[in-house]
Parts: sequence; C-alpha cells; structure tokens
Amino acid sequence: MASNQRNTSKPRFAHRRGPARQPGQQRGESLPPGEGWIWGRHAVLAALANPKRTPLSLHLTRNAATELTEEARARIAPQVEEPGQISARLPDTAVHQGFALKAKALDPEPVQAVTDANHGLLVVLDQITDPHNVGAIFRSAAAFGARALVMQDRKSPPVFGTVCKSAVGCAETVAHVHVTNIANTLEAFREAGRFVIGLAGEAETALAPAVEQGIAQMGRAPGLVIVLGAEDKGLRPRVADHCDVLARIPMGPKAESLNVSNAAAIALYEASRYDPRINPA
Amino acid sequence: MASNQRNTSKPRFAHRRGPARQPGQQRGESLPPGEGWIWGRHAVLAALANPKRTPLSLHLTRNAATELTEEARARIAPQVEEPGQISARLPDTAVHQGFALKAKALDPEPVQAVTDANHGLLVVLDQITDPHNVGAIFRSAAAFGARALVMQDRKSPPVFGTVCKSAVGCAETVAHVHVTNIANTLEAFREAGRFVIGLAGEAETALAPAVEQGIAQMGRAPGLVIVLGAEDKGLRPRVADHCDVLARIPMGPKAESLNVSNAAAIALYEASRYDPRINPA
Repeated sequence: MASNQRNTSKPRFAHRRGPARQPGQQRGESLPPGEGWIWGRHAVLAALANPKRTPLSLHLTRNAATELTEEARARIAPQVEEPGQISARLPDTAVHQGFALKAKALDPEPVQAVTDANHGLLVVLDQITDPHNVGAIFRSAAAFGARALVMQDRKSPPVFGTVCKSAVGCAETVAHVHVTNIANTLEAFREAGRFVIGLAGEAETALAPAVEQGIAQMGRAPGLVIVLGAEDKGLRPRVADHCDVLARIPMGPKAESLNVSNAAAIALYEASRYDPRINPA
Repeated sequence: MASNQRNTSKPRFAHRRGPARQPGQQRGESLPPGEGWIWGRHAVLAALANPKRTPLSLHLTRNAATELTEEARARIAPQVEEPGQISARLPDTAVHQGFALKAKALDPEPVQAVTDANHGLLVVLDQITDPHNVGAIFRSAAAFGARALVMQDRKSPPVFGTVCKSAVGCAETVAHVHVTNIANTLEAFREAGRFVIGLAGEAETALAPAVEQGIAQMGRAPGLVIVLGAEDKGLRPRVADHCDVLARIPMGPKAESLNVSNAAAIALYEASRYDPRINPA
C-alpha cells in the first residue's frame, strides 16, 4: 500500500502543472507490469466478487462505499476519498462513478482449457485493440454464453481500465486466452472438432447459413468459433485461410461496415439461436 | 473565419494553464449554438460530401489534405496544420487522425417526413445520451437500411464530435428526427400503419417472433419501428405502453444486459431478414 499512500498525499492536480500531455495520454501513477486500475461501479464490484482477481487498493467515494458487500470489505478495506482525489489517480477520460480499484492482472486461461468443442462457443479477436470494443465484446460474450475470448498475446489490450468499464463486470466472468499465433490456434480448434466462422464483409456466404452449416456439421452449438478482424483491415489472410467458412453479415446498399463489437454481438446472437440454454426448443 | 484565426494564434497549450478541468470536460474554443466540431477521417470526409452540411472551417494535417476530393476543396479551403494545433482546438479525448471540421448543425428532418410506413425502418432512442452509442447506432442504422433515428429533442446529444466519429460518416447519411414526446410519436407511427417493437429485457416475447408478428401484421419489413431505452433504466413506462409489443433478446444465464448499440444492431439485423434489399428471397 506504500505507493498508494504516497499518491494520496500528492497535491490533487499536481499532474496538470507538468509538461503538456498529448490527447489520450494517461495520467496517474505508473504501475508495474501486471497491475492496473479498474473503475466504474459494475466493473469494480464485479472485480471484488471475482476470487481470481487480487485487489491491491480500493478507492471509493462515501456514497460508493455504502454499496460494498461484507464479502468485498473483508477482502480489502476501502479508502474513502473525494471524487477529485479518485480522478487524479486515473486517466483523464475515466468516468469512475466513485469506484476505483488497483488490482493484479487476471491470469489468462491456457488455450488447452477451452479447446474442447463441448466447452462452449469461442470468440477470437484478430488484432482488435480498441478497449471499448474489446470490453463490449466481453459483455456480449457473457450475454450469449461464450466460453472465452481468444486474443493474440502481443496485440491485446490489458484487461483493465476501459476494457473492464465497457465490459460492465463481464471481463471477470468470461475467460480470456492469449495465444501467440491465431492461425495455428484455429487449426487446433478445428482438429478438436470445432467449426470456425470468420466474419468478412466480402464473403459470399451469409452469416445465418454459415452458422447453420456449422451446426449441421458438428451437431451442436457450443463448438462454434467466431473470428473477428480489425475494422479497417479485416481478417489477416493467413487467419482467413484457417477458417472453415468466411461469412458476411448481410447489409444494405448504404453501409460500408459495422462497428466490430456490433458485428460480434450479431454473430453471437445468430449462434445463440441453436443454444438450448438460450433458446429452448 | 475570424474566430478561427484568433484560435490559431493562441499559444498551443494555453488552456492547460487555466483552472483545472474535471475529467471529460471539453477544451477548445466555445462555439455558438448550432455550430460544432467534427473530427476523424471518415466523419470529416462524409460531412464534406454531404450537401446539407455547411462547413465553416477545415483543419487538416499535410497528409490528410492529400485525401481531399476536388469537390470538397471547392466547398472549403483547408488550413494545413500540425497535429498538435488541431488537437488544441478539440476536446482532450478527440482522436482526430489529422481531420477536423467546424460546421453548422444538420437540421433534423420533420417527423412527418418519416412517418409513412413505406419510408423504411425507424429506430427510436428513448433517453439514450451516450455519444459513442448514438454514433454506433447511426452506423448500424445505415448498415441495415433504416430511414431515420428518432430522438427526444431535449435529451439527444448533438450530431457532432463523438457521435459523428463513432458513426464513421453515417450521421450524414441517416436522417435524425427530433420530437418532443416519444410516446405520442409512437402513437402517430402506429396510426400510420407501422408496427412498434420496444426492446425490454423483462419482456416475455423474444425478438425474432416479435419481428415475425410485425411483418405478418403489416405484410412488409420497412414499417417496423424499433424502440430502445437507456441501459440502466430501460424504456420509460409511458413509452413501453405505446409499443405494439415488448421484446427481449434471448440471453444466457450469465448475462445482465447488452450494450445498447449492440442491442440495436441485433434488432436491426433481425428486422433486416425480411428486407428484400438486404436478404433477397
């Protein structure tokens, strides 16, 4: 907690007197690798309810502190602060709602733990780095019962901050997996009996028949793998090559593309039609 | 251009020496009502391509200026600036990609222009104010051929800045309509033969049968109206009362809710199944 105490005694807006920052640059204390901030009501309460998340320091407004459960309070004692004191710890853009938690990173799950086709739907992110989008995809993955998000280890945003805020707690409940090579990972999924659908705007097959084809081939919904590429570049060719089918979301003549988290939500929704937990026959 | 010139000659980070701002507070010059900033490559190029958008001043990096069409250049001469000069005009969080445009607001379309059930799918936003979400909904509305976004006049974010950035140009191509009373507007839509579906997590009917019911009742897809409420509060009771049916997006046991722009994308996708322009029989 030492670094914490040091921070609390710092003048409240001292950072503003430093050299000018570029837009988007972060303020607040710099943390060692493997530690980060989580902010926002849902994100912080979910992190405190996650036994796998190690809390390091908890900063709440007086109001926010009244929402802590006994269990959460037993894990870590909150420091009650003014909203501006909490803001000063966090990046400029953080809307913390009175809740900020410094915590250790979650360990990614090993890919072997999620490969089995019976273990549920997977979402693979090929070079999607925007934390708002990754967070929203965590949230949709939880909504539609996905087992995990699979990301490339060097290209994925840390599961902290904006990712957790946009995930409104779902980054704690949906596992993430880091792999070094997406294409090889897809091949391993296919060898394990999964069916891999890559979303690609230029594909001939529409999403619904692609999902239907996968279900027909596998005989079950949880084995599907949905692969999403970056909005500007789409799937990398080698990643696309390792999908069972490329599928497009049918769109009207005015459209260029969808936001990637919206595309993910639609693909998960389409896959969930065949999930008896979500749509009982 | 006078205010512009004044701004250019201002010290680059002068605003940083003023009183401390709260997170999320905007910097840059304050503009009169009816004027605002648009930033980001797609958003600015689309605004310049929209004959209904009046450009006031255009600020581009040297690289960005090479992307201007002759038509756009004929509308307004760009001022070539350094990235930091452009940043200094805009809110802290603006990622401008070398493109910033000061412009006049678009006039909302009158509700009478979109009421007719033959004029295409409508999306109604009941107190959705987050500009990222509103922007993403513009984008999905364009993708799935919606005629317009209908918002309450006092509760809608201006169609500038983050809305336009998230809409990647689609705020220029999908009309927006401002109304004073959402419930009364839904009633007018129903009287005009439209079928109104309100999304509500607690509804008994699932989305797909609700859309099917609407199509069966109207005999056509474009007449559907999709109503979305705020993520925390959902639809207001009086708004819900004026829908033909309330529908939920079926979700798994782990889920609490979806991001509202993701819910909108799913509802538009589901409605688009019946649109012959998007899914020819």
